[in-house]
Amino acid sequence: MSLLDKLKWRYATKKMDPSKEVPAEKVEQILEAIRLTASSSGLQPYELIVITNKDLREKIKAIANNQSQITDCSHLVVFAAWDHYTEQRINDAFDMTEQVRNFKNDAGIAYRQMLLKNYPARDPEVNFTHTAKQAYIGLGTALIAAAEAEVDATPMEGFDPKALDEILGLKEKGLRSVVMLPLGYRKSDEDWLLNLKKVRRPAEQFVSWIK
Amino acid sequence: MSLLDKLKWRYATKKMDPSKEVPAEKVEQILEAIRLTASSSGLQPYELIVITNKDLREKIKAIANNQSQITDCSHLVVFAAWDHYTEQRINDAFDMTEQVRNFKNDAGIAYRQMLLKNYPARDPEVNFTHTAKQAYIGLGTALIAAAEAEVDATPMEGFDPKALDEILGLKEKGLRSVVMLPLGYRKSDEDWLLNLKKVRRPAEQFVSWIK
Repeated sequence: MSLLDKLKWRYATKKMDPSKEVPAEKVEQILEAIRLTASSSGLQPYELIVITNKDLREKIKAIANNQSQITDCSHLVVFAAWDHYTEQRINDAFDMTEQVRNFKNDAGIAYRQMLLKNYPARDPEVNFTHTAKQAYIGLGTALIAAAEAEVDATPMEGFDPKALDEILGLKEKGLRSVVMLPLGYRKSDEDWLLNLKKVRRPAEQFVSWIK
Repeated sequence: MSLLDKLKWRYATKKMDPSKEVPAEKVEQILEAIRLTASSSGLQPYELIVITNKDLREKIKAIANNQSQITDCSHLVVFAAWDHYTEQRINDAFDMTEQVRNFKNDAGIAYRQMLLKNYPARDPEVNFTHTAKQAYIGLGTALIAAAEAEVDATPMEGFDPKALDEILGLKEKGLRSVVMLPLGYRKSDEDWLLNLKKVRRPAEQFVSWIK
């Protein structure tokens, strides 16, 4: 399947089959794709929490408009972004980069100092908006990775983020929930969306050119 | 190339070759992938502006830390998100969906009303944060689409968004610039980043499991 075919194949699955489980190997591929994709300054300012525990998913469903995919999927992936850019987090990322590459240069040192000077001093909300956006690069990546593995996935913003942070103890970790992605398999005969045409604005209304 | 290989192949190209042009067909594929990917409620709350004009790209470079890729690439893609969710924009999207599908049901009507009630009443900044995040799903998609086409791409946040909005006349269109993506080809012998190892946090530090 070409990338465009994968993007046409996927859809925001509304009804998943609770009897089907995504194989561990496929889940790992999807998580690895997210880990490998880009982020601003390479900081990867978010984490993934993968939940298979049934009781916990029941609790989450209750604060997420009772969306059935949360318990019918086999793996619920929560994207949780850094609540702030701290000196520690920036230094950890640059230290790791220098160590892995066994390389350090003036430009890299100056760049680290620039981030250390600017990021931690900003309003945490400004930083969280930025970290959350990076998580969405990961989300866009995950949708393609899932389609490549022929796994269904439903991007989900309809939940109470504060309640989810509480349930998962994210605050203590300096994280805030951003978006969820249940991974599972469509239950074709019960999904009202499956056979409806995918609708997108025509290219002429989405793209403009300046030549 | 598998998706993981594409993600390993790509990198934030620092030096592009100004003598090489991305074929129109490949650019179209990349734009089409962005158009097809997911967005919250399917609203696609952003647009793409593709700039090949040299003079304009010189002007943009001047408000973007003089990053050379802006003029060395062949196509500069600007992601510009809706500055607000208006009734008109929501209605246009739902009208189009109903028309294309030739289908209208109670759930769809209720969902439209829910968005009409909630979104336009929110602070425009809250809405812009939301629309910008959707653009980042598109960005994550574009990076993979570019790699599939063996085209180099550099996600770029380092510019003055207000100045870019001014240059492109985005305010009048109810848009705000979010991120740029030059498309071009690496100039291998002048790119300091090309041969440095890609660094990512180990999976154990990026993913946690609750079983």
